[in-house]
Amino acid sequence: MQTEHEVVVLRLGHRPGRDNRMTTHVGLTARALGADSVLIAGAASGSKETIEDITGRFGGPFDVELTETPEKVITGWDGTVIHLTMYGLPIQDVESKIRTAHRNEPVLIVVGAEKVPFDVYEKADYNVGVTNQPHSEVAGLAVFLDRLFEGTELDREWENATHEVVPMETGKKVEPTETE
Amino acid sequence: MQTEHEVVVLRLGHRPGRDNRMTTHVGLTARALGADSVLIAGAASGSKETIEDITGRFGGPFDVELTETPEKVITGWDGTVIHLTMYGLPIQDVESKIRTAHRNEPVLIVVGAEKVPFDVYEKADYNVGVTNQPHSEVAGLAVFLDRLFEGTELDREWENATHEVVPMETGKKVEPTETE
Repeated sequence: MQTEHEVVVLRLGHRPGRDNRMTTHVGLTARALGADSVLIAGAASGSKETIEDITGRFGGPFDVELTETPEKVITGWDGTVIHLTMYGLPIQDVESKIRTAHRNEPVLIVVGAEKVPFDVYEKADYNVGVTNQPHSEVAGLAVFLDRLFEGTELDREWENATHEVVPMETGKKVEPTETE
Repeated sequence: MQTEHEVVVLRLGHRPGRDNRMTTHVGLTARALGADSVLIAGAASGSKETIEDITGRFGGPFDVELTETPEKVITGWDGTVIHLTMYGLPIQDVESKIRTAHRNEPVLIVVGAEKVPFDVYEKADYNVGVTNQPHSEVAGLAVFLDRLFEGTELDREWENATHEVVPMETGKKVEPTETE
């Protein structure tokens, strides 16, 4: 979202086929709610393509990359590493510290699929639970980003969109954007 | 969440097979973030079972029902009907009015899959966009509930759980709850 320090989402444990839609939703949620990019561990070319299509149509900047070495992304991260997990500390107890960290350095948000290696728990600066209940990595990411940015992500401007939705009380309105 | 007036999530357009996981995530998100129940339109017995299993283990109250007549649920709703859609009015502009409505009456939150009949747009009291960007119905629902309850959902107590997660800085801890 072009805050001073970038926010990147790392999607772990993508299983081709089974996880395609969830991974696509993780990426689209990251984009819509203010992250600067998503890194997907594994063979997720379909999800990458869908997210890039949306970015091409509705704007960016937003970047999607695949990675075969997610551990290196975590260990090499120059900033704060957050791991979202139902086993972690309640978001309401740590969000303020995390916002302070983000004022000073980039933030990596790690989002797993079914099973996350224990290593990730140890390497994260914060293991954070959006509730300690089992629900959805997409929901957890959404609430986390909304709280990290304190709602400012909802007002962001999009660049290089070809289309935009015009909010309506009733109905659907999508318009081509003016070209520069 | 046993607020004075109930909050029910209605999941429309479930396509068996293709939507199983998304529908399960909608239901688990509804439960974890403070709704009282989820109604799923269509043949979603697998999702129902998964959500009920989680409720049996981690507590409730939370109710899951299938319905073949979602239109009747909407037209017969005695309270405020919210339809979450990327075409709707920005959440930040309407959330305060919706919170006021919820202080006076029950709220039904309608969450679609791919294509929602136009009828639903017309019958909803509010069409609400959690951004006007395409992302995920699970993400939209999560942010909507967190804002509706203003974070109080994160502190709710669970009844009749057999297990609970003990939040930890690092690691995973699930304990049996004390029996009464």
